[in-house]
Amino acid sequence: MANVYDSANQVAADLKDSQQFKDLKKSYDMLKLDSVGYALFQQFQNLQMTLQQKQMQGQEVTEQDVQPLQDLSTKMQNIEAIKDLMAKEQAMSTVMDDLNRIISAPIAELYQTEGDQPAAK
Amino acid sequence: MANVYDSANQVAADLKDSQQFKDLKKSYDMLKLDSVGYALFQQFQNLQMTLQQKQMQGQEVTEQDVQPLQDLSTKMQNIEAIKDLMAKEQAMSTVMDDLNRIISAPIAELYQTEGDQPAAK
Repeated sequence: MANVYDSANQVAADLKDSQQFKDLKKSYDMLKLDSVGYALFQQFQNLQMTLQQKQMQGQEVTEQDVQPLQDLSTKMQNIEAIKDLMAKEQAMSTVMDDLNRIISAPIAELYQTEGDQPAAK
Repeated sequence: MANVYDSANQVAADLKDSQQFKDLKKSYDMLKLDSVGYALFQQFQNLQMTLQQKQMQGQEVTEQDVQPLQDLSTKMQNIEAIKDLMAKEQAMSTVMDDLNRIISAPIAELYQTEGDQPAAK
C-alpha cells in the first residue's frame, strides 16, 4: 500500500506547483490585506460551513437559512479582492474535481463491469 | 499542469494494484454470482442514490424516506456475500478518504496560513 500513498503525495506536491494553486494563493494573500473584505469572507465561510453541516446531518436547509448567505454574497460582489479569489477558487475546484474523478475511476469502473450499473436509475 | 494529472493517473494505477482494491473486486465478483443477493444490493444502491440526491438538493430526508433503506439493510445482513462486500467497501473507503485528505492538504493548509482559520467556528 505504500505506493498509492506515495503517488498521492506526489499529486499534492504537483498541485502546489500548478498555476491554479499559485493563482489561488496569490489572490488569498491579497484578500488578507483587505480587512473589510477578509472579515466578510470569513463570515461567509463560517455560515456556509454551518449550512453544509446541517445538510450533511439530513436536516432541511430552509430559505431562511440561506438568506443571510445570499445577503453576504451580494455584499461580497462589490469587493474586487473577493471576486478575484472566487474566480481562482472556481478554477482550482475544476482541477480538484478532475483529480477526484481520475483517482476514483477504478472503483466507478468496477461497479460498471460488463454493463452492470448497480447505482444507475 | 500535465504533472498533476499524470500523478493522479499514477494514483489510480496504484489503487488498482492495492490489496484493498483487489479484495473489493473479488467480493463484488462473488456477489454477482448470487442472484438474490445481487438484486437486493442493486435495490439498496439505487435507493441510497435517490436519497443522496434529495439531500444534495437541500431537501429534508425524513424517517419515512430512510425506513425502506433500513429494511433492505436488515435483509442484506443475512447474506454472506453482501456482508463481505460491505466490509471490503469500508476498507476501500478508508483508503479513499486518506487519498482525498492527502491531495487536498495544500488547499486546506493555504486557508490556515499563519493561524488564519476562515472556515473554523
